[in-house]
Amino acid sequence: MHLSTLIARNIAGLRTQQFSAAARAKAELAILDTVGVMLAGSDHAGVSALKRVVLGNGSDGQSTVVGDPRRAGLLDAAQINGMAAHMLDFDDSNSQLFGHPSVAVLPALLALAEREGASGRQVVEAYLGGFEAAARIGTGISRYQYTLGWHPTSSVGIFGAVAACALLLDLDEARIAQALGIAASMSAGVKSNFGSMTKPLHVGQAARNGLQAVLLAAEGFTAASDAFEHPQGYLRVYNGGSENYDIDRLLAGWNDPPCVLDLGIKQKRFPVCYACLAPIDGILALRDAHGLRAEDIESIRVEVHPIRFPHINVPDPASPLEAKFSVHFCVAQAFLRGTLRISDFEDDSYRDPLVRSLMARISFGSYGEQDNLGGAEVSVRTRDGSLYQTHVVKALGAGYDHPLTPAMVRAKFEECASRILPAAQVHELYELLGTLSSLPDIRRLTAGLAENSLSHGENR
Amino acid sequence: MHLSTLIARNIAGLRTQQFSAAARAKAELAILDTVGVMLAGSDHAGVSALKRVVLGNGSDGQSTVVGDPRRAGLLDAAQINGMAAHMLDFDDSNSQLFGHPSVAVLPALLALAEREGASGRQVVEAYLGGFEAAARIGTGISRYQYTLGWHPTSSVGIFGAVAACALLLDLDEARIAQALGIAASMSAGVKSNFGSMTKPLHVGQAARNGLQAVLLAAEGFTAASDAFEHPQGYLRVYNGGSENYDIDRLLAGWNDPPCVLDLGIKQKRFPVCYACLAPIDGILALRDAHGLRAEDIESIRVEVHPIRFPHINVPDPASPLEAKFSVHFCVAQAFLRGTLRISDFEDDSYRDPLVRSLMARISFGSYGEQDNLGGAEVSVRTRDGSLYQTHVVKALGAGYDHPLTPAMVRAKFEECASRILPAAQVHELYELLGTLSSLPDIRRLTAGLAENSLSHGENR
Repeated sequence: MHLSTLIARNIAGLRTQQFSAAARAKAELAILDTVGVMLAGSDHAGVSALKRVVLGNGSDGQSTVVGDPRRAGLLDAAQINGMAAHMLDFDDSNSQLFGHPSVAVLPALLALAEREGASGRQVVEAYLGGFEAAARIGTGISRYQYTLGWHPTSSVGIFGAVAACALLLDLDEARIAQALGIAASMSAGVKSNFGSMTKPLHVGQAARNGLQAVLLAAEGFTAASDAFEHPQGYLRVYNGGSENYDIDRLLAGWNDPPCVLDLGIKQKRFPVCYACLAPIDGILALRDAHGLRAEDIESIRVEVHPIRFPHINVPDPASPLEAKFSVHFCVAQAFLRGTLRISDFEDDSYRDPLVRSLMARISFGSYGEQDNLGGAEVSVRTRDGSLYQTHVVKALGAGYDHPLTPAMVRAKFEECASRILPAAQVHELYELLGTLSSLPDIRRLTAGLAENSLSHGENR
Repeated sequence: MHLSTLIARNIAGLRTQQFSAAARAKAELAILDTVGVMLAGSDHAGVSALKRVVLGNGSDGQSTVVGDPRRAGLLDAAQINGMAAHMLDFDDSNSQLFGHPSVAVLPALLALAEREGASGRQVVEAYLGGFEAAARIGTGISRYQYTLGWHPTSSVGIFGAVAACALLLDLDEARIAQALGIAASMSAGVKSNFGSMTKPLHVGQAARNGLQAVLLAAEGFTAASDAFEHPQGYLRVYNGGSENYDIDRLLAGWNDPPCVLDLGIKQKRFPVCYACLAPIDGILALRDAHGLRAEDIESIRVEVHPIRFPHINVPDPASPLEAKFSVHFCVAQAFLRGTLRISDFEDDSYRDPLVRSLMARISFGSYGEQDNLGGAEVSVRTRDGSLYQTHVVKALGAGYDHPLTPAMVRAKFEECASRILPAAQVHELYELLGTLSSLPDIRRLTAGLAENSLSHGENR
């Protein structure tokens, strides 16, 4: 049996699963968080450029563009909202995918659900299906792709978008397999573009293309049945030899337990590349525990797992976006501010002489191969000769057993959404998202995502 | 200096080149041929499915959809027309690209030129620039990609679309470099999907994405300056180690001579996979020279270069599309018909018992590594014990020194276009395309590509 058929069978099987209350609650929390960061990213210069290109050239549909009063074609909305959701790199991650599951799944799903008038419960279930697919497929193929230079959020995450949209449309197994095969020829995104506007565009592309693959399959469009395992197919081309992927692991254990409750959803406390979070937690812990001040610092040493090292080794970031991928900037800025907010990465902050002075005292390396990919070693030497060290096992927010506090989640949502929407609308959205599963029509939610929709005199 | 900057410099340099009359004439011929096959492919079930998905979900722009009275958004038109152009696999090839240059370049360029109201001369020059870029970049990277399983028509051809569109918009070198870097994260298409509707979709995606990359760059959108040569960049991810690409060759000799006049444009006489053409020429030559009849055939042996072997080794094609990639079907059908027309691949022809009977007598292999990638050895053993053999150096239409005759080009255009348009419109288009360089506004041409535009009472 062909691999696309086997994966499709696993996806179709999620339809008949009863997701537990705990899984649903986790999904609602992830959707809340993702909607927040999508709003916060929606007015970034990169998203604005994409909107000029798309909305200025004949996209006249009925789909909501997050943070914008205009409407777009269905696929264009998926692309724009997908890019917005990842624009600030503030969205959640999953270590099986080696990437960002919610932005891979939700923007395509939300656009389609709006067209269909789906219920909140259907969206939550399709989200869980898409998340499970992205994480399980990632278990088999993402690690190698991440190491080589693919961005699995898009190159693998596209299959999560396919799964969620196919489940929402209730496609049969054969058509899901075709959609996966079509998407295998649309997967893309290289890590060299991390730190540029093209990284979040990867996510927009995965959303658009994953949704299009599903809509095409629903219309009888064909892909090769052996699109994955063919000698010149997806596995060989994206993963090389069979030593670089594991089909048995990819196909095993779907929803048993669901990935959202296992390694789970890692939510970000700060708007930076995931790999920078553990070093930030480390420096904040040392700063707070020992009352350290910038003028006392002789040097700071940061070490992470070698797989994380290359793309956050940016000692001299040249733009606000690059600063989010610069462990040097993130650690120095966090030390100086005592926390990190979106505004700490805006405008010229990456050139601030105070930050630069501290960055110059940071050295960065890797702690050698270990099982723990998500940890950090941070040490500070002060001018008086003292040495302070800490070992961070994993960042706060990293996984089911180490979540952000509810207060942190709410504060983050409010910081994000209030950059775009008036306070009353932010409050209403927060309440709506907290009871998503009981929403009869998702359009009640999407209507609230357009810019300042309350100002049109409606009072929902 | 970064690779994207160096390539951008070469592309920008094409602006100041004087293309020779011979190069312009070749471009006009290629555009004529591509418009013909684009029309012929425009009503295929695969293109119709794409149109339902795209035009049914909020694409309401002003761009011509070839063979259709409706209009689409700019990027959507590029996607639909790109897919249509490659739908029948009847379009031209280039051995430096290891793929199909005109469909990689023209659909995106034509959509943009229509928006801009560009002149025919501007289109011809931008086409030549896009062709040169696709072929020269292909010289450095395509061979490995083709062998691994990429479809260079899209995975490399996207940079040809970028070049053509950037030249038409007169982008400066820095913005062309950004567009190349954006496109590096949109390149896709695996060969396992050859023989399905997804293969021509690759071309639609390359057209849409290449055009979008240019429009984004024009709006100041950023990619990494080292998107190609970064250790986790395009070259490493798509080509692996440095033994699999050659930057010096990629950057050398642009437009000296122009590729259209060197290895050139290989036009197809028959609507099949390029690799099947030399075997077809071989069997037709033996059939005609010796007056062979099907009932006399004991066995047929066909051999091609090993790089061509895998994806045309389809002894039992299961669809009309797969039949175009089946050397067994193509050789048998050509023998029975004495030629090959589009209709010879439609409906149930791939199951015709007469063809199947002859296919069962065909054996297929490779002739071992040689310099000549495009040749074929064909031998026929008849029931009376005779053996007839021929060696085809390259297929008719393959290259500047072995072109299709003008009568063949015209007959092909008329066969293609008259499937969609009335005879008077076909004739008018043929005349218009013959004097393309003197056309003041390309919209005169694009207006004639919509379905039956003469029937609307206009008389151009």
